Amino acid sequence: MALTGRIRVWPKAVAANFARMRRQGGNAAAVVKADAYGLGLGGVVPALLAEGCTQFFVARLEEGMALRALAPQARIFVLDGVPEGTGPALASHRLIPVLGSLDEISRWQGEAALHVDTGMNRLGLPPEGVAEAARRLKDRAPVLVMSHLACGDDPNSPMNAEQLSRFREALATLPTAPASLAASGGVFLGKDYHFDLVRPGIGLYGGHPQPGHGPNPVQCVVRLTGTILQLRRIGAGESVGYGGTFHAARPSIIATLALGYADGVLRSAGNRACAVIRGRRAPFVGRVSMDLIGLDVTDVEGVAAGDEAELFGPALPLDEAAAAWGTISYELLTGLSRRLPRVYEGTQ
Amino acid sequence: MALTGRIRVWPKAVAANFARMRRQGGNAAAVVKADAYGLGLGGVVPALLAEGCTQFFVARLEEGMALRALAPQARIFVLDGVPEGTGPALASHRLIPVLGSLDEISRWQGEAALHVDTGMNRLGLPPEGVAEAARRLKDRAPVLVMSHLACGDDPNSPMNAEQLSRFREALATLPTAPASLAASGGVFLGKDYHFDLVRPGIGLYGGHPQPGHGPNPVQCVVRLTGTILQLRRIGAGESVGYGGTFHAARPSIIATLALGYADGVLRSAGNRACAVIRGRRAPFVGRVSMDLIGLDVTDVEGVAAGDEAELFGPALPLDEAAAAWGTISYELLTGLSRRLPRVYEGTQ
Repeated sequence: MALTGRIRVWPKAVAANFARMRRQGGNAAAVVKADAYGLGLGGVVPALLAEGCTQFFVARLEEGMALRALAPQARIFVLDGVPEGTGPALASHRLIPVLGSLDEISRWQGEAALHVDTGMNRLGLPPEGVAEAARRLKDRAPVLVMSHLACGDDPNSPMNAEQLSRFREALATLPTAPASLAASGGVFLGKDYHFDLVRPGIGLYGGHPQPGHGPNPVQCVVRLTGTILQLRRIGAGESVGYGGTFHAARPSIIATLALGYADGVLRSAGNRACAVIRGRRAPFVGRVSMDLIGLDVTDVEGVAAGDEAELFGPALPLDEAAAAWGTISYELLTGLSRRLPRVYEGTQ
Repeated sequence: MALTGRIRVWPKAVAANFARMRRQGGNAAAVVKADAYGLGLGGVVPALLAEGCTQFFVARLEEGMALRALAPQARIFVLDGVPEGTGPALASHRLIPVLGSLDEISRWQGEAALHVDTGMNRLGLPPEGVAEAARRLKDRAPVLVMSHLACGDDPNSPMNAEQLSRFREALATLPTAPASLAASGGVFLGKDYHFDLVRPGIGLYGGHPQPGHGPNPVQCVVRLTGTILQLRRIGAGESVGYGGTFHAARPSIIATLALGYADGVLRSAGNRACAVIRGRRAPFVGRVSMDLIGLDVTDVEGVAAGDEAELFGPALPLDEAAAAWGTISYELLTGLSRRLPRVYEGTQ
């Protein structure tokens, strides 16, 4: 049966990116929250295990439970901590919650990581709580003390050095424990930011850790394609799609692609993004519909119904597509719908 | 186990909206593509069947196959038509493709609907192909001739009357068959647009068929909530989240909500949308993260970790939320992630 759209994933390339990050940052854990950034936990984790990855981060309890089934021996950290009622399931799946408040420290007696907030103001212990946390944790040091950078993707941001300094202060107060500050961006901020463990996420999946700052150090691991359902000729001045937002400047050939925002191609990509067909770029025309996208293929020689169009992948970099969709690589990947099959291939 | 986020759906309200559309537009089919606009085919279809719905539209072959298992007797139309290689599966599941080109008309010999393009320039037979289609279909009239409005959500658009007129011309040329032009918006354009079948989609799911034009004629069927993981006090001038895009104008209480763009809350909602907690509105502050959103809850009396926040639902209309997220109700619903459980409840 012909599929109208699919996501090809190369797990070995994910593993190669993990090795790349480990080479750069030292000891590394893989961030596989949000179903491995949308690529599918079951497809990606075996390759990471084969590469020697033994530590993972997820956001939610349910993600940790799914990962435990795939990685019985791994150390799995759950960033959400211990929301009310989740303690027993965390314990029975041997998941390590990342505690972020004095209340959580009091409620959880098992093995734990500790999140210190150094400026995100999102999760983690606020600076004024660190001394009290140190008191309560005196006889049970966390297995990891971590924090998270707000601007790690921008090597020029003064926020990075500020957070580094606050993190060091917190570490000096807390019981001695392995420390972790850097995600993908932080890995490329230099050795000062590496501590005992780096936690790459987006870099594993081919997103540039610091977009706009030099060539992408990691490789492409995923390709989104859709099939052209129909071609039609339209005259100059004719419009395409809902609301008639695109008007052809010349007689044009429009391809209708079997992908839409229900597949995860953001509506904000309408009239902005493009696809690659037969090696040529074809701009999106009109609004993105739920199940369809119009492409101007007037300049694509030999184009035919049934052709495959690439929306990102080896021929169209992920970060470039994300910018044209009005977002970042992270949202582009995690927004890919379950309507599209993930197809795991051995090599790119 | 506590869930950190969930989507409550009221299938009986979907059925009531179907009845409302049928009252307005006459004979009606339910559009349930994209997994019933993200709400879950398996939860929604039984209620529609119980309401007497016997005809459905989906976009993709795979959706038709899933629907066939839930509705063995229903008439199921597949809007994508017959992409290369899909013929046998369409036939074996008794699915009716909506043909949109002369090539498809020649390739498909079974029961079929015909899509005439009257101005979307997306799918369907172009006007210049209608006469030839009529010739090829002489001895096998389609079970339905349909078209689709580009501006049905705007009763003031001149495009509606133009498309109506082109549709009538095509009908006059083609073999006699039942006709369908209106989706949810078209249902409210008056009797001229109803023909033999209307095809409501968004109206079934509580989205306003013509946003901005009078009160919403349909009722709320879905509620998205997330759980507050942590509360923190921040000083005036402190920032929240990635890139430090929000700065507090006063000493504030920030709640961190266990929802993010990996759940489908669009990143474009950052610093714009709001949630309802304990009956009060709490604005989003800072960027939406993959798994977390910051809310300013300074004015929410009695707020506590573990509180549930509503992002849309009975307390915050779907269309209002969609606008604050920078999109339309359709994308908001179909973008809801599989990470969130759908919980089907008997009554709102």
